[in-house]
Amino acid sequence: MSRIDGRTADQLRPVQIERGWSKHAEGSVLVSFGDTKVLCTASVTEGVPRWRRGSGQGWVTAEYAMLPRATNTRGDRESVRGKIGGRTHEISRLIGRSLRSVVDLSALGENTVVLDCDVLQADGGTRTAAITGAYVALADAIDWGRERKLIKAKAKPLTGTVAAVSVGIVDGVPLLDLRYEEDVKAETDMNVVCTGDGRFVEVQGTAEGVPFDRAELDTLLDLATAGCAQLDGAQRQALGV
Amino acid sequence: MSRIDGRTADQLRPVQIERGWSKHAEGSVLVSFGDTKVLCTASVTEGVPRWRRGSGQGWVTAEYAMLPRATNTRGDRESVRGKIGGRTHEISRLIGRSLRSVVDLSALGENTVVLDCDVLQADGGTRTAAITGAYVALADAIDWGRERKLIKAKAKPLTGTVAAVSVGIVDGVPLLDLRYEEDVKAETDMNVVCTGDGRFVEVQGTAEGVPFDRAELDTLLDLATAGCAQLDGAQRQALGV
Amino acid sequence: MSRIDGRTADQLRPVQIERGWSKHAEGSVLVSFGDTKVLCTASVTEGVPRWRRGSGQGWVTAEYAMLPRATNTRGDRESVRGKIGGRTHEISRLIGRSLRSVVDLSALGENTVVLDCDVLQADGGTRTAAITGAYVALADAIDWGRERKLIKAKAKPLTGTVAAVSVGIVDGVPLLDLRYEEDVKAETDMNVVCTGDGRFVEVQGTAEGVPFDRAELDTLLDLATAGCAQLDGAQRQALGV
Amino acid sequence: MSRIDGRTADQLRPVQIERGWSKHAEGSVLVSFGDTKVLCTASVTEGVPRWRRGSGQGWVTAEYAMLPRATNTRGDRESVRGKIGGRTHEISRLIGRSLRSVVDLSALGENTVVLDCDVLQADGGTRTAAITGAYVALADAIDWGRERKLIKAKAKPLTGTVAAVSVGIVDGVPLLDLRYEEDVKAETDMNVVCTGDGRFVEVQGTAEGVPFDRAELDTLLDLATAGCAQLDGAQRQALGV
Amino acid sequence: MSRIDGRTADQLRPVQIERGWSKHAEGSVLVSFGDTKVLCTASVTEGVPRWRRGSGQGWVTAEYAMLPRATNTRGDRESVRGKIGGRTHEISRLIGRSLRSVVDLSALGENTVVLDCDVLQADGGTRTAAITGAYVALADAIDWGRERKLIKAKAKPLTGTVAAVSVGIVDGVPLLDLRYEEDVKAETDMNVVCTGDGRFVEVQGTAEGVPFDRAELDTLLDLATAGCAQLDGAQRQALGV
Amino acid sequence: MSRIDGRTADQLRPVQIERGWSKHAEGSVLVSFGDTKVLCTASVTEGVPRWRRGSGQGWVTAEYAMLPRATNTRGDRESVRGKIGGRTHEISRLIGRSLRSVVDLSALGENTVVLDCDVLQADGGTRTAAITGAYVALADAIDWGRERKLIKAKAKPLTGTVAAVSVGIVDGVPLLDLRYEEDVKAETDMNVVCTGDGRFVEVQGTAEGVPFDRAELDTLLDLATAGCAQLDGAQRQALGV
Repeated sequence: MSRIDGRTADQLRPVQIERGWSKHAEGSVLVSFGDTKVLCTASVTEGVPRWRRGSGQGWVTAEYAMLPRATNTRGDRESVRGKIGGRTHEISRLIGRSLRSVVDLSALGENTVVLDCDVLQADGGTRTAAITGAYVALADAIDWGRERKLIKAKAKPLTGTVAAVSVGIVDGVPLLDLRYEEDVKAETDMNVVCTGDGRFVEVQGTAEGVPFDRAELDTLLDLATAGCAQLDGAQRQALGV
Repeated sequence: MSRIDGRTADQLRPVQIERGWSKHAEGSVLVSFGDTKVLCTASVTEGVPRWRRGSGQGWVTAEYAMLPRATNTRGDRESVRGKIGGRTHEISRLIGRSLRSVVDLSALGENTVVLDCDVLQADGGTRTAAITGAYVALADAIDWGRERKLIKAKAKPLTGTVAAVSVGIVDGVPLLDLRYEEDVKAETDMNVVCTGDGRFVEVQGTAEGVPFDRAELDTLLDLATAGCAQLDGAQRQALGV
Repeated sequence: MSRIDGRTADQLRPVQIERGWSKHAEGSVLVSFGDTKVLCTASVTEGVPRWRRGSGQGWVTAEYAMLPRATNTRGDRESVRGKIGGRTHEISRLIGRSLRSVVDLSALGENTVVLDCDVLQADGGTRTAAITGAYVALADAIDWGRERKLIKAKAKPLTGTVAAVSVGIVDGVPLLDLRYEEDVKAETDMNVVCTGDGRFVEVQGTAEGVPFDRAELDTLLDLATAGCAQLDGAQRQALGV
Repeated sequence: MSRIDGRTADQLRPVQIERGWSKHAEGSVLVSFGDTKVLCTASVTEGVPRWRRGSGQGWVTAEYAMLPRATNTRGDRESVRGKIGGRTHEISRLIGRSLRSVVDLSALGENTVVLDCDVLQADGGTRTAAITGAYVALADAIDWGRERKLIKAKAKPLTGTVAAVSVGIVDGVPLLDLRYEEDVKAETDMNVVCTGDGRFVEVQGTAEGVPFDRAELDTLLDLATAGCAQLDGAQRQALGV
Repeated sequence: MSRIDGRTADQLRPVQIERGWSKHAEGSVLVSFGDTKVLCTASVTEGVPRWRRGSGQGWVTAEYAMLPRATNTRGDRESVRGKIGGRTHEISRLIGRSLRSVVDLSALGENTVVLDCDVLQADGGTRTAAITGAYVALADAIDWGRERKLIKAKAKPLTGTVAAVSVGIVDGVPLLDLRYEEDVKAETDMNVVCTGDGRFVEVQGTAEGVPFDRAELDTLLDLATAGCAQLDGAQRQALGV
Repeated sequence: MSRIDGRTADQLRPVQIERGWSKHAEGSVLVSFGDTKVLCTASVTEGVPRWRRGSGQGWVTAEYAMLPRATNTRGDRESVRGKIGGRTHEISRLIGRSLRSVVDLSALGENTVVLDCDVLQADGGTRTAAITGAYVALADAIDWGRERKLIKAKAKPLTGTVAAVSVGIVDGVPLLDLRYEEDVKAETDMNVVCTGDGRFVEVQGTAEGVPFDRAELDTLLDLATAGCAQLDGAQRQALGV
């Protein structure tokens, strides 16, 4: 069996992580998983939302969006429609939770980091690319905050690393890192967010057509865990650590 | 270790499935998982949304909401705020996907079933109770459609059954069917949607604090699978099948 | 002449007032006027809206809503439409005004009571059932506030009781407490809110088809006054006073 | 007892009904009740809303609004706030119902008349002035439609006339046609809509403070009926009929 | 060549500036450019928007809107649609900038003036009439503020005068102050805002069909400058200065 | 006098026009004016908006937006705020008008082109860069349409070329192509849209502080005309024509 782009079942698409893309943001990354391109910026501001004031703890949140023509056919702008769709909400929340899972909010102090993940071009896996890129932007933003003394010199807000990948069963075959054409055909679709030490932060598996059994689930988790480990390597290389 | 309400770790709360609650809806269920109470109504209409017309296929969708004082402190109404929150969107989509996984949309014909799941009282597990109750309301609505000849006599739109339960790790102990007090303390929280034959429709696991490893994931899946099997029994008993 | 359900022209439907329906709310009532069922919860919070702060006076307000399938055909959710309809606004304001008419806001202290009236099933008279039930929920909430010392021991925030009923002219005959089938046929439709001592808080009469004359108005007011007196009895019985 | 502007208790403010105010609208009236000024335009369009198509019947509806500085202190624009307030909704619905009560929608044919009632300056009684003026604009619009053959020559869409006035109890004294200063002090406030033959279309009485009894209600209705009769005269004079 | 209403190419329509139209507003003008009628009110409030507090400077802003039947065919209300259209936003911003260009915000003190420009009847040139009328309302509001000691006796918040006019090329002929019928035919349409000493505050030229060259631009600017000078005279006459 | 980046007063920033940036859009350009980067995509769809159907004419429109962290401090997303701001509306309309000025909509046939201009990084002149880039994306999209036979082989929808540049007076000196730091200090700010043959499509000059006179206006127009001619060259080079 050969995949549409000649990859093996357990092979990632080419991954690129371009740091410092923006002149304005405290951290910024243009991340590519093949033709999927997401611009991730990290914005640091002093202070926290009202419900957190006085707690001594910081806050990390994320907003995900797609440019209207990131996809094959143009979608309406959510700003023009006047409301955010369910899918957008869902992914923004997923990115935020994933990144908070590796942040010690006390060590961050009462500062807020907003991660904006804007999909410039979509070809499957936009949320997993967003998480993978946003982690690198966050790391840069935290370094920036330490240099500006917003964050204490000895504080270590990052307690680990985090990356994400999609897996799925297409025509009965478990595959890693689905492109759009594969994604729409998948019977089961799963997004997995792992820490660098191989534990899980999020496991979201969905039967698009036929329900899946425990053996299929196990195979998909194996594929995803291996994929995340490779992405962890790409992140470390980009950060030079 | 004893749970707040004296249950064992692998024990469900008392489950009640009260059919025919509403005089208007084509199917209706008041489902209780302990103190969590969700009113699930199924509304059948001829025709499908515009993007599906002429396909010969039906549509099943869901809307989830909470009454403002379903919870311990009153929440603002989403209608008053003028927009639906991310959590509501996420759960509505989950319920819809879960039910569609056991429906043959071709056998439904060009008819639409909307499942409204309104939480009257919340004590953890509202989305899993909603899925479990909505399945029964859906089954009744399909019978109604068959009697009214909207659905062909020999068509079998339901291809299986579906139920859902929450599991989580609280103070290091894996538990089934979390109450609110357990849910807020959980390190890992997972919602699992199973078919009656023990396969998975949705697996959504989230590390609220510490990431979880493969062994913990496996334990939680075992608990959830057993819990869903019991709920499947409760559904069958309610439906008398 | 016999009514659709065999009642006489001046007869109420069976009235049920079930206190303590919710485990969370400070006061809660499931009120039924026949098949019309409304869940009324009273939520007490310390403090008042900004425009009232420092006045030493409390505030009582109400929000009315219908579940989408409370009615014979499913209605869109107002949260999904992104705005509240005129009818909802109108009824919420009516309920709030009616209850405030029997509350001494100074005696309440700077506390707020929100009455949520959610129609679970509709069969005419939802607003009058809501007012009648909300009064009982409010009475319970005020007792709760007194026990918690939010309200002074000797303060008497309730200056009277309030109940409401619909009346109308159907096929030329004045009737009390209209069901939905009667309501849609009524030439004149009136909602009357009375205090327990038989005075008026609100009189809202509308000619749906033919204008009505003074004699008809007088007959309707007589019917409504008698109906409210019976509802006052049902409220007292429920409260055990 | 003398009123703020020297009127007797049963005296209207000076009423002016200026027809043909707008060069564009099919009917238009600038109506004044003292310092309250409302511009009422009637717009006729062929066709009816979707839910009425094919019925052979027309439709009459109304929209009420206030300019932001119609009042003593500037109010936010509802367009800027992005939603219409409850009071605006309530009054728009009242005006629409009141005018439909004197229209034979079958005689109108499948045409729509929208009555826009924009308050240019407010000093109490804006809704009653709006109804009174809108009737005249509607009459002119129907004549326009008959000339343009949109409405059949022999059809008589208007089955009567309609006018409205406010009454209230201020310092224990029943008064006709309240100004703003009187309105805010009123214990009871009532808006009454009458046909030209003295019957009622709407009676909306509200106890702002103390509940009112049957005798007070009767006195207010007498005052209002007499006031409406005078307004009916002013309308006839303006229309030259 | 004769214009639709017999004017010469460089002739304004009859201009009327009626001060003191409203009993409530601190400044108010009903301005007419021919059949275009705009009600401009100036509302003064102590204090400034949050972002300006403590600056010692005031703020001047504007909101423009059209009544739904100000135009030949009825337009939907922006409040009903739930959002403000692009054209409305654009014009509101233009009016605000134009007036701020002749205000010394420091001399105003921390006070805010809101200019509401509501088009009662439209026949082309509504934004230019609005600016011309709003200036006069603003001048009256500043005098009011000085009398009430909100503005210091010696402060001179107005640093000049401002008026506006439209010009355009219709059938190849440059014309001043376009009516609606001319406006829709114009190849080029320009709005020019001038100070009383003949300098420019805004120049907004748009080629509706064919691009325009430098010579055409120069001719239009000459026409507009002369037209603004006449409007400046009308303003002075209205203000009696 | 030397500018912040060493340019002369009449010098553009480095201009880059990268065609074919997106794999999905029918035309796409990443345009840079120095650090200002705008992604312009042209989306072609068969058919036109409802109000244009059956006219035989096409439609060209534009939507402009900024990523939240395109600027020095993060701005709220318009989708999250639920409405589009006035500035966004204004610029979207400007881009649309500018491009329509060089399109023969009849030659386009009943097809629609939407130009999405998303600012990835902002440093002044975002609207002028957007127009300049969008023209190139539009040209590519029209070629695409001709190849797909959506547009007739002999039809020439493009009647000219269009480019735009900002000019302004900073510290008394007229400058071409302002950067952000210059823009905020400018006394007068003007955006000029020219066709390739040196005529004007839009001239929008605004006095931010001091009004400007005719001589200053003339100088700015000279600067802008020369700048647009250079941009026209860059467009031709990018398109290879």
